[in-house]
Amino acid sequence: MAFLPDLAATPRFGVNWTPRRRWFHAWQQIDVAEAEEDFAAIAGLGMDHVRIFPLWHLLQPNRTMIDPRSVDDVVAVVRAAGRQGLDVSVDALQGHLSSYEFLPSWIVTWHRRNIFTDPAVVAAERDLVTALAEALRDEPNAVGLTLGNELNQFADPSHPDPMPATADQVAAWCDQLLGAARRAWPEGHHVQCSDDKSWFLDPHPFQPELVTTAGDSTTIHSWAFGWVADALDGDVTRMSHFAEYLVCLAEFWCTDADRPIWLQEVGAPRPFVPEGRAAEFARATITNAIRHPQVRAVTWWCSHDVSTDLADYPPLEYSLGLIDAEGNVKDEGRAIAQLVAEVRDDGRPAGPTAGAVLELPGRTPSDRSATAPGGPLFRQWVDGAVAGSPPRLVGGRA
Amino acid sequence: MAFLPDLAATPRFGVNWTPRRRWFHAWQQIDVAEAEEDFAAIAGLGMDHVRIFPLWHLLQPNRTMIDPRSVDDVVAVVRAAGRQGLDVSVDALQGHLSSYEFLPSWIVTWHRRNIFTDPAVVAAERDLVTALAEALRDEPNAVGLTLGNELNQFADPSHPDPMPATADQVAAWCDQLLGAARRAWPEGHHVQCSDDKSWFLDPHPFQPELVTTAGDSTTIHSWAFGWVADALDGDVTRMSHFAEYLVCLAEFWCTDADRPIWLQEVGAPRPFVPEGRAAEFARATITNAIRHPQVRAVTWWCSHDVSTDLADYPPLEYSLGLIDAEGNVKDEGRAIAQLVAEVRDDGRPAGPTAGAVLELPGRTPSDRSATAPGGPLFRQWVDGAVAGSPPRLVGGRA
Repeated sequence: MAFLPDLAATPRFGVNWTPRRRWFHAWQQIDVAEAEEDFAAIAGLGMDHVRIFPLWHLLQPNRTMIDPRSVDDVVAVVRAAGRQGLDVSVDALQGHLSSYEFLPSWIVTWHRRNIFTDPAVVAAERDLVTALAEALRDEPNAVGLTLGNELNQFADPSHPDPMPATADQVAAWCDQLLGAARRAWPEGHHVQCSDDKSWFLDPHPFQPELVTTAGDSTTIHSWAFGWVADALDGDVTRMSHFAEYLVCLAEFWCTDADRPIWLQEVGAPRPFVPEGRAAEFARATITNAIRHPQVRAVTWWCSHDVSTDLADYPPLEYSLGLIDAEGNVKDEGRAIAQLVAEVRDDGRPAGPTAGAVLELPGRTPSDRSATAPGGPLFRQWVDGAVAGSPPRLVGGRA
Repeated sequence: MAFLPDLAATPRFGVNWTPRRRWFHAWQQIDVAEAEEDFAAIAGLGMDHVRIFPLWHLLQPNRTMIDPRSVDDVVAVVRAAGRQGLDVSVDALQGHLSSYEFLPSWIVTWHRRNIFTDPAVVAAERDLVTALAEALRDEPNAVGLTLGNELNQFADPSHPDPMPATADQVAAWCDQLLGAARRAWPEGHHVQCSDDKSWFLDPHPFQPELVTTAGDSTTIHSWAFGWVADALDGDVTRMSHFAEYLVCLAEFWCTDADRPIWLQEVGAPRPFVPEGRAAEFARATITNAIRHPQVRAVTWWCSHDVSTDLADYPPLEYSLGLIDAEGNVKDEGRAIAQLVAEVRDDGRPAGPTAGAVLELPGRTPSDRSATAPGGPLFRQWVDGAVAGSPPRLVGGRA
């Protein structure tokens, strides 16, 4: 089946699956029954899909070795989700997960190579994408591949071990990998994804043009922490428009009016969102986003809190689940479940009234920082959105 | 049982186990029957022990999480070796293996920390050593722990991502980890190990005093490639005395005349040792080493060739096995098996006749380079050894 519904339909709702026990380390000795228990809890919230993150080094421990046992584990997990009525989107190259990075030994230290530009590495990545696509394409509840979670972080100079790549190199890399996915699995919904550096950092090589053209939808990762929370004065109401702002920015950059948007990651990070207001934030964030009909799917980050038995995550990562580490549904889990049920009953919320026109400098990568959190354009847009009418973003064509 | 025999007994012979299928990646989805098949082939060569290398990131995927499933895998492998009559020594922190390095995600990129000096990291390492010791101490064929394979490489400035540590810090680190092993498993034979930087590089923080005092034996890793082969004019006969030279150097540095030496790694690296002379080299190398009675065990590197299906190893790593990747015993496998049988029948070969006295500058770390391959002392020693009488190394006490 197609992953994303038509414009007229209600959007899809899902979660990014963070295994309740052992976090993503569960993959190294997968327990399918435990996975299915998680999926049952997720389905119990009314979700229709999950995004899952097998680990690269397990799937492909050597440049020329894909471990069929680890690929089988992915298939087994997909089937477990299917038994609970969930569709599954699979990330191929992990990659970056909640500050931790899992790089196979064949691209680190003595074997250090660039994951975007080294031809032999890219060929191996293509092999893995192909192998996953071939293993999953006949699974009725598998919907497609994401190349990997926020791999763009590796390409940015802010990374501690950066793998520099130009925008052209990144685009060629995406093209190769998405092409491999498409060839092996023509019906799948295949995408790349990146964090908000793509929208806000002028020199960042993952550019809006790429994000709004590569793959089958524009993916958005909306994280209202750090500088974003600062720029929004830590005001939860204002923060609940941040995902919507990214949706509007994506529409601004996109030249294809029909291209769907997948809000692929969005969460309620403590303490930027205070504990007692997470449910309100979650409900408002999703409502504000899905009143834009291009948003065809929302995938919350994440299903389960990281257990405090595990060390060294940024503090906010421990509390992002809709379900806690003991398996109890949290306030925001209940709030989102209720919202999902309402939308399924009543349809998508009505779009906002048309706001004022907000002129952006233009549509070239070096115009990105003008729209960043903290700047006057951002503030003006949020003011309008909070007042009920998000400004329309317009600007010169590149 | 004690791992190392008394001075009077014949030495022990074993191999470093490189799983025939999937190399050390076998650990990520261990197949105990395949492991046992390897062990049967190893036992068939007359070996009495193996050294094994489970992977750190699987055993301890988070700083505060030791995966009991992966620890159970180690125990299952030890038992499989036991069924084939083999004792097992287990390396804890892998670490560095044939150019590939396996570092858990909690000490790389955004979580980069020093494995020798970061107190929280060292505490976690201690936890893992303790967990392995507790899991193994009651296994009748488990003999002890090595902290990890050649972790000293990470402490050297030549490493691409060095983790600097002073000699005092390294000594404290060893002390903590070996102490943990000793407390949890008092009867085990526990050691640290390092490559020949310890013997030859003046500034290297793993120093001869550490190597000849820490743990229950002095471990030697003898690799006659690169600069060593150059310094020996690529002459196989001369190269077959290199392990013996390290044994004599270890005796020179050691202040405890009773301390045993474990020749823990030695192999026949192509093309430095030509294919047709590997058997001769292996036989001569072991014979030359074990005529020194402090050498109580020899553990060949390695059991099985790396399959050429796996990419990017230094070329020499593909041909170090006593058994090839298809399971056929190689020339050097037969040669070593025959030698082992002879030594068991006839006893240890007679020691060399006393050679000339060779005065070394002294016994401080900054004297190390004077003994390095390529220098006149080294050449003089090898000349004497090849002529039948390895010079006695003497020198001022530090």
